[in-house]
Amino acid sequence: MSEKTILLDHGSGGTASQDLIGNLFLKYLDNAILHGLEDSAVLENQPGKLAFSTDSYVVDPIFFPGGDIGKLAVHGTINDLAMRGARPLCLSLGLILEEGFALADLEKIIASIAEASKSSGVPIVTGDTKVVPKGKGDKIFINTSGIGIVDENLDISSTRGRPGDNVILSGTMGDHGITIMTRRAGISLQGRLESDTMALHTMVATLLAEVGDGVHTMRDPTRGGVATSLNEIAASCKLSIELKEEDLPVTPEVRTACEILGLEPLYLANEGKCLVIVSAEQTQQALAVMRGCREGSQARVIGRLIEGPPGRVVINTPIGGSRVVTPLHGEPLPRIC
Amino acid sequence: MSEKTILLDHGSGGTASQDLIGNLFLKYLDNAILHGLEDSAVLENQPGKLAFSTDSYVVDPIFFPGGDIGKLAVHGTINDLAMRGARPLCLSLGLILEEGFALADLEKIIASIAEASKSSGVPIVTGDTKVVPKGKGDKIFINTSGIGIVDENLDISSTRGRPGDNVILSGTMGDHGITIMTRRAGISLQGRLESDTMALHTMVATLLAEVGDGVHTMRDPTRGGVATSLNEIAASCKLSIELKEEDLPVTPEVRTACEILGLEPLYLANEGKCLVIVSAEQTQQALAVMRGCREGSQARVIGRLIEGPPGRVVINTPIGGSRVVTPLHGEPLPRIC
Repeated sequence: MSEKTILLDHGSGGTASQDLIGNLFLKYLDNAILHGLEDSAVLENQPGKLAFSTDSYVVDPIFFPGGDIGKLAVHGTINDLAMRGARPLCLSLGLILEEGFALADLEKIIASIAEASKSSGVPIVTGDTKVVPKGKGDKIFINTSGIGIVDENLDISSTRGRPGDNVILSGTMGDHGITIMTRRAGISLQGRLESDTMALHTMVATLLAEVGDGVHTMRDPTRGGVATSLNEIAASCKLSIELKEEDLPVTPEVRTACEILGLEPLYLANEGKCLVIVSAEQTQQALAVMRGCREGSQARVIGRLIEGPPGRVVINTPIGGSRVVTPLHGEPLPRIC
Repeated sequence: MSEKTILLDHGSGGTASQDLIGNLFLKYLDNAILHGLEDSAVLENQPGKLAFSTDSYVVDPIFFPGGDIGKLAVHGTINDLAMRGARPLCLSLGLILEEGFALADLEKIIASIAEASKSSGVPIVTGDTKVVPKGKGDKIFINTSGIGIVDENLDISSTRGRPGDNVILSGTMGDHGITIMTRRAGISLQGRLESDTMALHTMVATLLAEVGDGVHTMRDPTRGGVATSLNEIAASCKLSIELKEEDLPVTPEVRTACEILGLEPLYLANEGKCLVIVSAEQTQQALAVMRGCREGSQARVIGRLIEGPPGRVVINTPIGGSRVVTPLHGEPLPRIC
């Protein structure tokens, strides 16, 4: 491609669009199904229920330590499928590009999408590209939707929590959120802050194979963080959740950044973590399985479901106090994912 | 909701987002699957192959004669599924809203989406909403993705055209494109110009039930119009296509508008029309079936596939001349859909 930036013609559906598809998208993302470039992809069905998820990504900046908007878009939708116990089958890719966006940046993002898709084993099978005039968008917005297959007898849902179930968190809190925030604020901190963006479906598949029906609920605490996800889970299963403050895992770097910025890690977005609500009997087994996976090596129990006011989340402090953890109202900084 | 416009907090994933979901989206779009508000929708599978499609909609203006961006987003993805012979099962809805967008306009669009979804019998089962700061988007962008089911023995694809096949167009050309263009140009013309946005899956299902395998290819000529879609079909099946100029259906209003604006209806976007490549033997039957449907009442044969240079589309004029119809390069006006 001789052009150095995205032109309105790239969104026309004409030969300029075809050039972009042929010279850039297929170069990185090609596979037998996508190759047809038909109005929709057609693929073999598999036994089981269908899981279907969609997410748009508008993160700013589009490149950040630990990843970029493309990688995030692949991992995010894979994780949304995995949280229902689905084996992700394929993804769609919808791009909204701003006129004038650098083609070199687009190529970096497409290459990153290809790499994330390949390493996750979940192909992009259909796509769409639109271009909006300069000033009517912001570089690139990405929508990924995904289809997964759920075992017929599996029912992972936020309504299934029971009193006594434990809450496992697969790793540390807030890494993605604080990375974006410090980057946006132009703050440079000592130590290594980077997004935790990561696909969780392989760990989830292993967990379900080992623990099966003992896993009641899974949720990836993205926007709104662990606090908001737990509030939603508690509301859905009509129970209370109690957390132990000293069990909440946060890296020293994130802790420091939060102290400087006056932020609470419980509310920060994560892009490679999951909350697992598991029966008391199978908690140790679930922990062992998760810790045996790279994605869950730091998994730990952070709390449990108890009888109590539906939807209430309380945190017990080491000195014997307790406080209610309300859900986030609004993001301290927009465009976190 | 007391706020009159979209705030950044509506995209936070916190309680402001939940308000929007509960008070607006569920009010119009509620169904048993969407209601769960889980990370992904889980639904019963059905025998057959899976069709999967995605499309983002950035049309400007968002309200136009004959429809709006919401209706377009529902119909467009349903049609993309139908063009592969799929029975549409469900849709996802991804919104990217600009801070300051009027909530009343959002409500109108959501109501329109609900109406289009209901009248098409294709529910919205999962969704996502992001908000970008004022000036970083343009009111509303919509992504819809969709899943459909294709009969195991059906293979509708642009590679299947054979010499002698006829090209049927389901109705007049250019209605959507010219409606948007005249609206954007601020031109007011006599007569009734309106978008043809319409779901085609019911007509397609009837057609396939009656004509079955005689239907080789279907394509909805959206961006790039009939000319561009036929160029793509001709390239895919490695044949030429010849059209008869006097058979190309255009309403007098669109004809007049095109003459004033110097546009060619063959390149204008359609949002409720399809091209059907059908075997010579079953052409009359296909025409009869399509004409028996409201969506195809004006269906007619506009040309045929012939041996010749792969990918070439020629148009024969009434006075005995002929000219090559090249694909569109770039849209004369961006953001047509």
